[in-house]
Amino acid sequence: MLSYETLPYSHLKEFCVDVFTGYGFSGADSAVITDVLLCADLFGIESHGIQRLIRYHREITGGVVNVAAEPRTVSETALSAVVDADRSMGQLISAKAMETAINKAKNTGIGMVAVRNSNHFGIAGYYAQMASAQDLLGICMTNSEAIAVPVYGKNAMLGTNPIALAFPARPVDFLYDAATSVVPRGKIEVYNKNNKPLPDGWAVDTDGNGCADADVIIKNLIAKSGGGIAPLGGNTELYGGHKGYGLGIIVDLFCAILSGGKTSNHLNLIPGHTDITHFFMAIDYGLFGDKQSLSDNLSRFLTELRDSPKAEGESRIYTHGEKEYESKKEKLVSGVPVNAATRDEMRMIASFHSLDYDAYF
Amino acid sequence: MLSYETLPYSHLKEFCVDVFTGYGFSGADSAVITDVLLCADLFGIESHGIQRLIRYHREITGGVVNVAAEPRTVSETALSAVVDADRSMGQLISAKAMETAINKAKNTGIGMVAVRNSNHFGIAGYYAQMASAQDLLGICMTNSEAIAVPVYGKNAMLGTNPIALAFPARPVDFLYDAATSVVPRGKIEVYNKNNKPLPDGWAVDTDGNGCADADVIIKNLIAKSGGGIAPLGGNTELYGGHKGYGLGIIVDLFCAILSGGKTSNHLNLIPGHTDITHFFMAIDYGLFGDKQSLSDNLSRFLTELRDSPKAEGESRIYTHGEKEYESKKEKLVSGVPVNAATRDEMRMIASFHSLDYDAYF
Repeated sequence: MLSYETLPYSHLKEFCVDVFTGYGFSGADSAVITDVLLCADLFGIESHGIQRLIRYHREITGGVVNVAAEPRTVSETALSAVVDADRSMGQLISAKAMETAINKAKNTGIGMVAVRNSNHFGIAGYYAQMASAQDLLGICMTNSEAIAVPVYGKNAMLGTNPIALAFPARPVDFLYDAATSVVPRGKIEVYNKNNKPLPDGWAVDTDGNGCADADVIIKNLIAKSGGGIAPLGGNTELYGGHKGYGLGIIVDLFCAILSGGKTSNHLNLIPGHTDITHFFMAIDYGLFGDKQSLSDNLSRFLTELRDSPKAEGESRIYTHGEKEYESKKEKLVSGVPVNAATRDEMRMIASFHSLDYDAYF
Repeated sequence: MLSYETLPYSHLKEFCVDVFTGYGFSGADSAVITDVLLCADLFGIESHGIQRLIRYHREITGGVVNVAAEPRTVSETALSAVVDADRSMGQLISAKAMETAINKAKNTGIGMVAVRNSNHFGIAGYYAQMASAQDLLGICMTNSEAIAVPVYGKNAMLGTNPIALAFPARPVDFLYDAATSVVPRGKIEVYNKNNKPLPDGWAVDTDGNGCADADVIIKNLIAKSGGGIAPLGGNTELYGGHKGYGLGIIVDLFCAILSGGKTSNHLNLIPGHTDITHFFMAIDYGLFGDKQSLSDNLSRFLTELRDSPKAEGESRIYTHGEKEYESKKEKLVSGVPVNAATRDEMRMIASFHSLDYDAYF
């Protein structure tokens, strides 16, 4: 098990901003990238937080991410836009694209922006929440390198392809953010690190048969030799695997097809290009009635769900966004747990930029 | 096992139109209801086809469905509408609502219609496909009486809450139509009829514990005594049950919250009212580029999925809409299989309307 140290959020933030400025991003852009990155840690989604810094470091220094990207609006209407990201840092083009969608929603009622030729953008929920923070309904999706296998298939053809949706509610906004694969790749990696067998139905081997060996699954994915993770619902129709598989296709439809970009199964094939695509949507739900009362109605429904009787042995029913909200509140006060391997990587990155790691932490 | 007889589609159609005309619907309206109803049979979705005629018969003769409904547009913009269905036959208000969404999409690029105070509308995919048939992206959702239990809960709080999405493609349009519960209620009923134990994780008893006894589950749902069907992903987080649970909430958000209607957990509580709500959306995907080329790109992606290597022992990977298309093609020629219990009910309904069942079949 990795040893964790809790680092203060404000110090982490300062460190990350300096790191990204070091790569050549402006101060404002570095703040945006940092905000998205550390939002994952605050939400308790470690896989997408500071531990990913090393991946971004490699992508930026390796030229996969274009620090001097000049994204181009390919086409635009009052309701929509298609953007070529010019291999931008995913967080930067995505925050801008959601802002564009939000502005369109404020002007016309709805805004939809499809982005191609981008890179990993962090957590989808971040962008959905940008809209709910402005009292709009927000939706965000992204495709990613293929790791999920179609039902009855044996090759990875779809990414984790998450869908996020946010809507204003009290005391906590509704925030859904979930991969359409049964689990993200990071979960398989955690089982591997702990040498635990995978639950039945999470993954399949190169013949398309169920496989509980996390190490085999990860090696196959890296080697692109076949096999992969099952869609939400599993790798057969018994538990609705065709539903998760179909949701994965829908994400590629909105992100890759509408942007004129590449579908999951064509990502990361050209050296120096991930070719990731995204989709952002904001809806002014005032189109449907008095906003305060619609949001109150959702808040009441979410409360009814939380207050409904608990299963034996369970003390709490969550609604989506609560865990993230509570985690953020706690971590802003008590700090962000960072594992030893990540701290080593941060030291290496600090010295790359001639920064003094110990001066931050 | 029930004995099936194959009845010609054209005869079934004639029969249904006469039956619905008998209740007082116009010839045109009866044709719409029949088209939706038998579309389910043609698609091979028996649970939503002619075997549901008896339920509609009871709802219409019992006054739950208002044959003389005068639906009212509560509010409207160029992009959106909220409609009170006045307890209309679900199929009628839904076909009209999707037509409204389609017309708005043709004028502005997008159309969204939320409907409250309606009734069961048949298969969600029918309405999504109305949009794809006009070269638009179509989305349709509906809530329904609560049968699905939140993760860590023990009471049914969400309906099967299906999501349908259609997009033009060749040789077959993409057509996704799936409940956000792990299975629909009809599947539990089939296991009960065949006296088969339910697969682990499909359903929970009144304590919220897994339960394989279909008879117990159905009796509990009818008595509203607790327990119910798990969300897609199961009744724990291990296989992503929180994802299916969240998708169910999203469906209630679009249908019930945006329409100002009732959420799943409040349906079917007032005698004479189901209070079901729906949501319809059409997007002119020409907002994002040349339609022919976007649709070609999706067609190519779907072909790549189908052509990808098969798991051991499997000969085919499907994409969504293929099974329905092939079933329809075959059943238009060879007829629709109708089980003995349903044929008895059809005879009863025929005699209710003083129609001669044997003259049709």
